[in-house]
Amino acid sequence: MAGRAVPEPVVRLIEEFSKLPGIGPKTASRLTYYLLRTADEQSQDLALALQELKARTRFCELCYNVTEEQPCTICDDAGRDRTLLCVVEEPLDVLAIEKTGSYRGLYHVLHGAISPIEAVGPEDLKIAQLIERLRPGGYVEVILATNPTLEGEATAMYLQKQISPFGTKVSRLARGLPIGGDLEYVDEVTLARALEGRSEM
Amino acid sequence: MAGRAVPEPVVRLIEEFSKLPGIGPKTASRLTYYLLRTADEQSQDLALALQELKARTRFCELCYNVTEEQPCTICDDAGRDRTLLCVVEEPLDVLAIEKTGSYRGLYHVLHGAISPIEAVGPEDLKIAQLIERLRPGGYVEVILATNPTLEGEATAMYLQKQISPFGTKVSRLARGLPIGGDLEYVDEVTLARALEGRSEM
Repeated sequence: MAGRAVPEPVVRLIEEFSKLPGIGPKTASRLTYYLLRTADEQSQDLALALQELKARTRFCELCYNVTEEQPCTICDDAGRDRTLLCVVEEPLDVLAIEKTGSYRGLYHVLHGAISPIEAVGPEDLKIAQLIERLRPGGYVEVILATNPTLEGEATAMYLQKQISPFGTKVSRLARGLPIGGDLEYVDEVTLARALEGRSEM
Repeated sequence: MAGRAVPEPVVRLIEEFSKLPGIGPKTASRLTYYLLRTADEQSQDLALALQELKARTRFCELCYNVTEEQPCTICDDAGRDRTLLCVVEEPLDVLAIEKTGSYRGLYHVLHGAISPIEAVGPEDLKIAQLIERLRPGGYVEVILATNPTLEGEATAMYLQKQISPFGTKVSRLARGLPIGGDLEYVDEVTLARALEGRSEM
């Protein structure tokens, strides 16, 4: 009965919104009925932005970050330190590191992490491409900035083994207490890591 | 610097997603980068659904619910009780009541509630159209199912005054304890209403 009360285009948009991560059927309905209420332009602008996303962007053939140009603006920036390479899982991680303003080297985006549970192996990631980038030499340090998760750690360990023959310095982002956090609420694994990695004052 | 690292189509889609209610810049980025990773079809399907939402739906000229046909399937359903009219704020409310399966009358969607703060007056809602529907008579009861909020209550009070000259019975949805709720966590206004409206066992 409820189905008859809802026109098919409304049902369809609710379904499409529900396919997005973190958006359940309730939120999807709310978004759809919100768009029904607002001006046509808002739906049109969103539709256009969706179409242009894939039409106008590709992956940089050097670092595999998302880009409009080939190579991307970071790889193409003569002002950046070409001896430093930071390896991340996703394009969003590049953005996060750029926002800190504390890194001026290059990037390499793996597009995921090794995960036996999700059947993601090294061959599914841009690891062969990373090795090819390192082969001619010239990099002083490779920073492994994969996530501090099981998958991220496994990927970092795998990469470290692959990179060590090149003799390049390999580092990993520091693990420890998050700034502004409260010791009382920090999980025991993080606290253990912070203890292990303590530095003299 | 972060701006240069993000292609314009990515920025644009993040902006468009951020305009949706309940979606902040973080969620908008996550959705955008998720779509970058997935097949082109998913972005295309969402874009198409957005375009069709406005192109293929309109408001029913009788009840102002969202519909593909004119009048809508509910207004057109000969099996429904035409002496009962349920007045709601939004099309989503029709859906919620339909899902209960306990109502077989007709609806009238106001498209909002009276709110002096947001400068929404009776003339901004489908109230004149409601009065026109009631004028010829034939309705035994009008159920005011506006939200149990300040605005919803104000709208119900206003409507009750407007409808009373017709002599039609006007009712309001019961206020009280939500089923499955815990007395301890119910707010005092709801509890006061539940006490006021207590019924003999």
